[in-house]
Parts: sequence; C-alpha cells; structure tokens
Amino acid sequence: MPHIALPPGLPGIRGAMAFRPQTAHPLNALVEVLLAAENTLSRGERELIATYVSSRNCTRYCHSIHGAVAAAHLGGDEELVKQVKADFMQARISEKLKALLTIAGKVQQDGKLVTTADVEAARTLGATDIEIHDTVLIAAAFCMYNRYVDGLGTEQPDDEALYRERGRRVACDGYVKVSEEYLAGTGAEFIVHSS
Amino acid sequence: MPHIALPPGLPGIRGAMAFRPQTAHPLNALVEVLLAAENTLSRGERELIATYVSSRNCTRYCHSIHGAVAAAHLGGDEELVKQVKADFMQARISEKLKALLTIAGKVQQDGKLVTTADVEAARTLGATDIEIHDTVLIAAAFCMYNRYVDGLGTEQPDDEALYRERGRRVACDGYVKVSEEYLAGTGAEFIVHSS
Repeated sequence: MPHIALPPGLPGIRGAMAFRPQTAHPLNALVEVLLAAENTLSRGERELIATYVSSRNCTRYCHSIHGAVAAAHLGGDEELVKQVKADFMQARISEKLKALLTIAGKVQQDGKLVTTADVEAARTLGATDIEIHDTVLIAAAFCMYNRYVDGLGTEQPDDEALYRERGRRVACDGYVKVSEEYLAGTGAEFIVHSS
Repeated sequence: MPHIALPPGLPGIRGAMAFRPQTAHPLNALVEVLLAAENTLSRGERELIATYVSSRNCTRYCHSIHGAVAAAHLGGDEELVKQVKADFMQARISEKLKALLTIAGKVQQDGKLVTTADVEAARTLGATDIEIHDTVLIAAAFCMYNRYVDGLGTEQPDDEALYRERGRRVACDGYVKVSEEYLAGTGAEFIVHSS
C-alpha cells in the first residue's frame, strides 16, 4: 500500500511518475541518456550496472525491470543477469565490465569509497573517462531511483512475466517513449537534443 | 585530484556537469523543479532538506552550497542551517518540517525504512501528499548528487565565502540559469514547461 495516493495499476516508479509529471520528465530524460542513448558501453552493459546497483539496494521493482531490459539486450540470457546480481566476478562478462561494476558497487555504498586504484584498474582494461563517469552516475542515479520507489511504498509485483514483457518494450522503444502512455497530456513538455 | 579529467576551476558537481553536458541538463532540470520551482514548501525548507541529506552523506560540496542557498532564503540565518545539520529536532523550524526531515533521513539510509506512522505524523502536521512526495524525491535525489560528486573525486573546497557568494546567486537566479556559464554552447538544449 503506497504511503501517498498514487494512481492505481501503475507499479514501481510508474505510479510515482504519473503522480508528479513535473519531476517525471527530468527523471525519464536522465535514464534515457544514461541507459538508452548512444554510448561506447552497450545498452546491455549499462542495464547490468543499473540492475546490480538496484539489487544491492534490494529494490525489487528496479532490479527486476532493469534485469529484464538487460536480458532483452543480451539475447534473452536471464541466467547471466542472475549471475551478475549474485556474484558478478563469476559471470561471463568482460574484465572491463567487472572493473566498472566494482566501482558501481562502491558508489552504491558511498562515493568516497572509490579509489584511484579502482579507476586505474578499469582504465587499464580499456575503460574511457566517459565510461567511468557514466558508471559512477548510473550507480548514483539508481541509488536515487531505488530510494524513490521504496520511500513512497510503491507496489512492486512479484510476477516475472510482467517485468519480462515490459523489459522487451523498453529495450525496443526506450524510456521516454514507453512513459508517454501515462505522461501524455500532463502539461509538461520536455525536449532533449543531446547531439 | 578528480578520478577523471574534469575541466579545472569548477569545483563539485560543476566540473562533472561541464564534462558531460548530456547528463548535466536533466540533472539541472531535476534540481530546478525540486528546489526552485513553485511549491507549497518554501525554497528555504526544500534547501534545508537537501542540506540535511547531503550532510548525512558527508558530501562537503553539496551540504555547503545547499546550506548557503538555504541561508540566503532564510534571511542569512547560517546558525539555523548549522543547527539543522547538527540536530534538527532542536532547531527553530516548524514541527511539519521536522516530520519531513525525519522521512528524508530515513530515505537517505534506505527508502524501505519509511513507515506509515512517519507519513501519518507529517500529514497530521499539515503535510500534503505532494509535499511528502517531494521530500522523498529530494532526499533520494541528493543521495544521487552526493554520490556523483564524491564518486568522481571532485574538488570540494573548504572556503565558506565561496559557497556563500554562489549560494546567493543560486537563490536569486535558480539552478538552470547559473549553470549556463559552463553549459552554454555545449550542443545540448533542454526545455521544460512544468505548467
């Protein structure tokens, strides 16, 4: 039962966004740039970072939906997503991504835990400054999204099929487009040119 | 020394934003809506929530600058800002704001710690659903901004006068406008109509 009167039938962050479109628009624009826009990190890699941080924060809605989006980008490999949540060092992912997930895990606890050695390790494995920046910001942003979803007591269903279906849609259309179904006509317009 | 090659001379989040304008724009738009846009919570009250959360996260740049913005909105009362950081229950603020800061403090730790009783206490003291929503999102958002600033190892100066001067400008002009000095001409345009 949510702590405030969120519109029914919209689980997780969707109910919160429909309740407050003024903040939904920058929140959606941020996740679109971080996870869906052009980047040298693949969409699957970035979704795995978001999933891992959300899993560490124990926010079921977020780690389920971003895990589903990640799987959709990774040829449906749900086992790989589970392995990253459980113990990414044993997962079949690149050493570079493991180094970035190490940084993300520290940011999830406290940004001050990230060391020069952590960053150098990622750089030695090929990570660019923008990739390191985006890893830090994805991890930080999911510490926000997770607390937002949990702090309002939003509905967080347990049905994997629900996340799988929506994950496929987000993977195909991106975040801003799929949110139009509950944000259209809310009187808030948001235009991003990130060229 | 920042972990990546941030532009020099721009402390805290400013260097990170100048480095990556594509993400700076939604980050600025979010803080503008949360802290500077029209709201039944005053700008001073919202800045105090941001300051308190940043102080709990021990992020010097953020609790100093938002503390300075708060003081600017509160007739220059820096002592009140210090009291809110140290022990808000003893501060000369409304009981409603104390109840909202209690919720913000729980979100700072983990959104799941917020209870129905916390929310009812705020509501009994006059808080609306939008005010409760915004408190949760301000607290969650500063868990992001703080981790972003710390996780990149940004410069966080110790000079109170620097924060005081900039705090006055932000209080006067808002976040989007003061960021134009380092984001102008970056090829990213952002238009928000939050009517």
